[in-house]
Amino acid sequence: MSATFVIAQGGGPTAVINQTLVGAALEIRKRHPGARVLGARHGVRGIRDGDYVDLTDIREDQLRLIGRTPSSALGSTRDKPDAAYCDVILKGLQKAGADAFIYIGGNDTAGTQQILADASGGSIAFVHAPKTIDNDLEENDHTPGFISAAEFVAGAFLSVDLDFRALPGIYVGIVMGRHAGFLTAASAAWQLDEDSGPHLVYVPERAFEVSRFVDDVRATLDRHRRCIVAVSEGVSTADGKALVESLVPPERLERDAHGNVKLSGSDLTAALEQALATHLPGKRARVDALGYMPRGYVGAINPVDSEEAFNAGAFAAAVAGEGGGSVALQFDGRQTVLKKVPLDHVAGKTRHMPPDFMQADANRLAQPAYDYLKRLVPAKYQVGRPFV
Amino acid sequence: MSATFVIAQGGGPTAVINQTLVGAALEIRKRHPGARVLGARHGVRGIRDGDYVDLTDIREDQLRLIGRTPSSALGSTRDKPDAAYCDVILKGLQKAGADAFIYIGGNDTAGTQQILADASGGSIAFVHAPKTIDNDLEENDHTPGFISAAEFVAGAFLSVDLDFRALPGIYVGIVMGRHAGFLTAASAAWQLDEDSGPHLVYVPERAFEVSRFVDDVRATLDRHRRCIVAVSEGVSTADGKALVESLVPPERLERDAHGNVKLSGSDLTAALEQALATHLPGKRARVDALGYMPRGYVGAINPVDSEEAFNAGAFAAAVAGEGGGSVALQFDGRQTVLKKVPLDHVAGKTRHMPPDFMQADANRLAQPAYDYLKRLVPAKYQVGRPFV
Repeated sequence: MSATFVIAQGGGPTAVINQTLVGAALEIRKRHPGARVLGARHGVRGIRDGDYVDLTDIREDQLRLIGRTPSSALGSTRDKPDAAYCDVILKGLQKAGADAFIYIGGNDTAGTQQILADASGGSIAFVHAPKTIDNDLEENDHTPGFISAAEFVAGAFLSVDLDFRALPGIYVGIVMGRHAGFLTAASAAWQLDEDSGPHLVYVPERAFEVSRFVDDVRATLDRHRRCIVAVSEGVSTADGKALVESLVPPERLERDAHGNVKLSGSDLTAALEQALATHLPGKRARVDALGYMPRGYVGAINPVDSEEAFNAGAFAAAVAGEGGGSVALQFDGRQTVLKKVPLDHVAGKTRHMPPDFMQADANRLAQPAYDYLKRLVPAKYQVGRPFV
Repeated sequence: MSATFVIAQGGGPTAVINQTLVGAALEIRKRHPGARVLGARHGVRGIRDGDYVDLTDIREDQLRLIGRTPSSALGSTRDKPDAAYCDVILKGLQKAGADAFIYIGGNDTAGTQQILADASGGSIAFVHAPKTIDNDLEENDHTPGFISAAEFVAGAFLSVDLDFRALPGIYVGIVMGRHAGFLTAASAAWQLDEDSGPHLVYVPERAFEVSRFVDDVRATLDRHRRCIVAVSEGVSTADGKALVESLVPPERLERDAHGNVKLSGSDLTAALEQALATHLPGKRARVDALGYMPRGYVGAINPVDSEEAFNAGAFAAAVAGEGGGSVALQFDGRQTVLKKVPLDHVAGKTRHMPPDFMQADANRLAQPAYDYLKRLVPAKYQVGRPFV
């Protein structure tokens, strides 16, 4: 009997996660002629429910068009299966006759694969293919999806900075990222010169203090006449609580099914607006959440990111033939290389920004962060220096 | 003595307003060798304060680079001068030896030019060159800046719709536009098929009712499993009050210097979130303001928009030699043509979406709106249909 491969997508979509799906599907078809390739709808839910798209015979040009399409074409899920749920998934995979399961996602997804691999006793190969705009996977130099998201954020802040040169004021842009500040740091990737925003960058790796924030903004206004701020939605106060928990009354806090505080509703926006209005009255201030744009904006799909995502999928197909594991994008000093690493090196772990990415005494990036961003997100647009 | 031309930029920046500046400057240099070209910083404030950039001898390649740069390179202002302020401006123009003043902006900017023209007695030519992402200028088929902004909004909603196909829920995107719904309508320009979002579009031209909104969302969820909504920040209830005024307690309402209610802070976002949480409890819902991105995102500068904006500037230079007036972009059934129209046809007036752009009995676009958008904002990206 021919082999069966199951592929699924988990967690938040990215601009290039479909490249990984298509890279895996095409590589399986090349390596294993006659094999069945099944796409599970909405991640492990599709396996639980036996809900599959048969990718075995879809024309290559159609698959490649899907690859160029942002978001998760198979649908996704936020489910983080426990042992009992994993048992149901395992039975579902057995019922489908799966020889391998490639799950594309972040550290939670790797965690699911780890549990399944432990429970299966080796009868099925479990592969994790990396994806996350948060760029927070251990063993990886960077992750597929990050470059495109970073490009959107870099362009957004370049644009807003030009806007606020024309009409001065305070702008605070809230950027996705619960635990790692890489994406928020990308806001500074395309600064034109010393005067350019973002002038302040607040990341989850460093404790956030409202009084310090207000002082920082005031000093920036004195110096630049405007103040552009990038804030990670996951910034926390020194007691380890998410900022939104410090600013919003407990009865108004929203939580998701896992009990995580909802970081990016209007509460954080309103609280920061309020802090600015109270402490810097009369200043024009605007607080916006960049929202979902960075993770899938159709106009910011980076070709390098696309290619790396595709190759990670193809590599995952190879790893499926070698007993499973996690695919990692590493940097050999010259270029990105793909490696197979053990699932438990990635599962459930969070990679943070290195401490030397931030200046010790200011909420600004330090040189190593600029070097890293310059390598991954080089300037894309040529713009002139305004007359103001 | 050689002629002197003053140019300024007013109101909110756009992605292509600098093309109009550069188009005007280069055309003046071509038509009037030896003429002085002065750029006033921050609109009429620069004239009041004698704060000019001399554009006479800046190299053409440098100017063209500025043209490709989003936002207002001369800086802008929200000042709407009254008669006394206009008197100061007039004196400033006389002091600078101005023979003509080209002011790039929207209907308020045209209004300033109208007052100045009436007060000057014909000694200076006053020209209004159009610019606005709101697309709300009379006499114009569309305005420079709109196409790029519309392209961003169309791409944003295409992307968010794909995101919510993967992880279903309710998404509400708030789009700039105080009185006219064109930009919000552009959210539907790149729908893939009948199932595509935005499923609901709320524009200022039509009274907004919270109960109807909730019913609309509920019905859409039943039909599509997700609901993508585009809401103009300027939507009003039947009594003519801005929605934010109906939803937010009066003491919390923010107003600008002109007494206009601030439409796009977190209040509207929070109020819509609250309405959804109350009436559709337990549904995943996200309300985001697209904020400033549409008006100047460096990654969504449309080449046709750029060219039209440049040509409008060059045409304004010609109109400056003909006693002044307002430059209008009209459509002759085949292509965009530039016309000179009287300032008072545009000054202080608002062009609304034609009533037949919306379906009579649903908050969705009608065919004439799709036809209009298809002409101005044709699909730019090829994307595939997801499997969910």
